[in-house]
Amino acid sequence: MRRVFNFSAGPAALPQAVLEKAQAEMLDWHDAGMSVMEMSHRGKEFMSIAAQAEADLREIMAIPDNYKVLFLQGGASSQFAMVPLNLLRGASSGKNGSADYYRTGSWSKKAIAEAKRYCDVNIVADTEIDGKFTSLPDEGSVKFNPDAAYVHYTPNETIEGVEFAYVPDTGDVPLVADMSSTILSRQIDVSKFAVIYAGAQKNIGPAGLTIVIVREDLMGEVKDGTPAMFDWAIHAKNNSLYNTPATYGWYLAGLVFAWLKEKGGLVEMGKINQRKAAKLYAAIDTSSFYANPVAVNSRSWMNVPFILANADLDAAFLEGAKAANLMTLKGHRSVGGMRASIYNAMPEAGVDALIAFMAEFEKGNS
Amino acid sequence: MRRVFNFSAGPAALPQAVLEKAQAEMLDWHDAGMSVMEMSHRGKEFMSIAAQAEADLREIMAIPDNYKVLFLQGGASSQFAMVPLNLLRGASSGKNGSADYYRTGSWSKKAIAEAKRYCDVNIVADTEIDGKFTSLPDEGSVKFNPDAAYVHYTPNETIEGVEFAYVPDTGDVPLVADMSSTILSRQIDVSKFAVIYAGAQKNIGPAGLTIVIVREDLMGEVKDGTPAMFDWAIHAKNNSLYNTPATYGWYLAGLVFAWLKEKGGLVEMGKINQRKAAKLYAAIDTSSFYANPVAVNSRSWMNVPFILANADLDAAFLEGAKAANLMTLKGHRSVGGMRASIYNAMPEAGVDALIAFMAEFEKGNS
Repeated sequence: MRRVFNFSAGPAALPQAVLEKAQAEMLDWHDAGMSVMEMSHRGKEFMSIAAQAEADLREIMAIPDNYKVLFLQGGASSQFAMVPLNLLRGASSGKNGSADYYRTGSWSKKAIAEAKRYCDVNIVADTEIDGKFTSLPDEGSVKFNPDAAYVHYTPNETIEGVEFAYVPDTGDVPLVADMSSTILSRQIDVSKFAVIYAGAQKNIGPAGLTIVIVREDLMGEVKDGTPAMFDWAIHAKNNSLYNTPATYGWYLAGLVFAWLKEKGGLVEMGKINQRKAAKLYAAIDTSSFYANPVAVNSRSWMNVPFILANADLDAAFLEGAKAANLMTLKGHRSVGGMRASIYNAMPEAGVDALIAFMAEFEKGNS
Repeated sequence: MRRVFNFSAGPAALPQAVLEKAQAEMLDWHDAGMSVMEMSHRGKEFMSIAAQAEADLREIMAIPDNYKVLFLQGGASSQFAMVPLNLLRGASSGKNGSADYYRTGSWSKKAIAEAKRYCDVNIVADTEIDGKFTSLPDEGSVKFNPDAAYVHYTPNETIEGVEFAYVPDTGDVPLVADMSSTILSRQIDVSKFAVIYAGAQKNIGPAGLTIVIVREDLMGEVKDGTPAMFDWAIHAKNNSLYNTPATYGWYLAGLVFAWLKEKGGLVEMGKINQRKAAKLYAAIDTSSFYANPVAVNSRSWMNVPFILANADLDAAFLEGAKAANLMTLKGHRSVGGMRASIYNAMPEAGVDALIAFMAEFEKGNS
C-alpha cells in the first residue's frame, strides 16, 4: 500500500487511523452484519453512531446547550443561500432586510454574490488590492450597521490563505462564520457566534456533509418560498433526519471527532497546527527563493500559499514534489504558485518533508 | 466477518463485491497513495472516476445524448423543490404556473406538499382509499392539463409498495419521475421522460448522492430567488462540479454501475428482479397467514409489504427473522406489518431465505 503526503485544499487528507478503522468496518460494523452505509438512518445502530458523533463534536468544541448542531448536505455553497433565507427576519413581509459582509477573498465573494439574491448586502470591509487579497482589517476597525440582520465573514479564506487571528466583536448583531477551512483547527468560543457552518471535506470528513451550528433562538422564520430542505428549523426539529442524511459521511466525521479526542482535543491540536504553520512560514520567509504574499498577522494556519521567485520553475517544483510523494501542491489558478494545505490530518512529518524538499529544490535550482 | 440479508428500504444493502472493492481501495486508490475521499474533486484521478461513472450509467440506462446526468446532493427531498423551481417557466414573470401531480402514496404526497409552495398543483389521480394506497390508475385513464408545466409521478412508492407497470403517456407535457426506489431495477426508455431523479441510497450507492437526468432543453430558466445550488443549469454547465460534490458517493455509484454491467445490465437485472418479486408474492399469496394489500397489477418489484393475519405475532416474527440473519423487515409505521425491500443488491438467496423463514414461522405459529 502506498500513502503520500496530500496537501489538497479539499477534499483533503484524512487521518490514516480513521481510514483504517473505516476499512476494517466496511463490510461489518460492530458485528451488525452490514456496512454503515447499508444501515437505515432510523435504525438503532445508525442513531447511536449519529448521536455519538454529535456528542463528541459538542464536547471537543464546547458547544453550549442553546445551540443546535445540524448534519446537512450541500456544502457551504448551500449555506450561502440558507444564511440569508433563515436570518432575514421580516423579509417575508416584503421588507428587504440587509446584512453586513466582509469581503476578504474568493469564498466571501461567493457568499456575497448569493446573498445579493435575497437582501441588500452592505460590504463592511473589502481587502482587495490590485485583484489580490493579502491582508485583513485590524481588530476593532470595522463599523457595523446596528440594523443588519447579521454580519457574515470567512475566518479563513482557503484560496488566498488569509485568516482572522481574532473574532470580530459585532455587539448585538448576530455573527455568522463560514469556517469550512478552519473549523476544528483550534479551540474557539462558540458563544461569540450566532451561526457557524463548514463543509466537511477539509477538517471534518468526506465531501457531501456540512455541519451547521446555530443558536436556537435564530431559527424558525424563513423567507417565503424557501425550500423545506433550506430551513434550518425543519432539520433541527428532526435531528437532521428530515430526509435521509449523508449517513456514511456522518459516521466518518464521528471517527474523526473520536480521533481528535484521542489526540488531546482542540487545545492540543491548535498547538500542533500553530507549530506546523510556523515552521513552514519560517522556511518560506528565510528564503529569497520562495515567498508568501500574506500580511504576517493574517496568515492562515491551514492553507499556506507560496510562490517561487521564478515562476518558470513551477512545473519542475511540482514534478520533483510528486517524486518525493508530496502531492496536490499546485496553487489555485487565481493566486498562482503553490499552496500547501496542512489541515489536522497532515502529520508534522509531512510538513517537515515538504520543508526539506523545498530546501533541496532551492539548492538545486538557485 | 458477519454478513446478514438486509431488507432495509434505504439506505439499503449494497453488492458485497462493491463493498469489498471499496474496502481494498480505501487507503490507496489505484496506487495514487490516497483514498478517493481524500482526492481533490478537480484532480485528474477523481475526474476520471466521475467521468467513468457517468459513462457507465449512460450506457446501462441508454440515456440519449440530449440529456444531462447530474450527480448532486440533497436527496429526492431537494428535487421536490427543484422540479417546480426549474420547470415553471414564466413563473418568474409573476404568473403562477401549474403542474399535474399523481397522488399515489407517501412520497408523492411529500412531492406535492413541497410543489405547493411554488405553483398550483393539479391532482390528476388520487388513489387514497380509507387512508391507504394500494392500487394505481389504469393506463390511459388519467386526463392531463395541456397547459401544465409538467406532470409529476412516483413510479414506485417505497412505503406502500405500489409500482406503475407502465409509463404514463403525457403527450407534449414533460413527464417528471421520482425513481428513487425503482431506478436501475429494469430497462426503461429514458426518452419518454423529461426529468428522472433518484436518491442514491436504494439502488445506486450510499445516501447523500442524488442522480438527476434532465433533458437539456428544459434547463436554464428558474424562478426568481432560486438558490444557485437549486439550479440544474448551473450544475449541468459545471459537470456537477459547481461546488464540491459527494465524491465518495459518486465513486461508489460508479462501482455499482460497473457491477451492473458485469451482471449483464438492466435487461438481465430486470429478469432477476421480476423473478425475486414473483416468488415472494407467490409465497405470500398462497398463504392465509400472510397477505399483501396491493392490487396485483400495481405491485412493486422492489418493496414488498406484507402483514401477518395476526398482528400480535409481529414482534415474534421480527425476532425470529433476526435470529435467521434476516434484518430490517419491520414495515413503515404508516402501513404496519412487514416490508421486504429487495433491491438489486439483494441476492436471490436472500429472498429464498426469507421465504423459507416465513414458511417455517407460519408452521410454528398456525
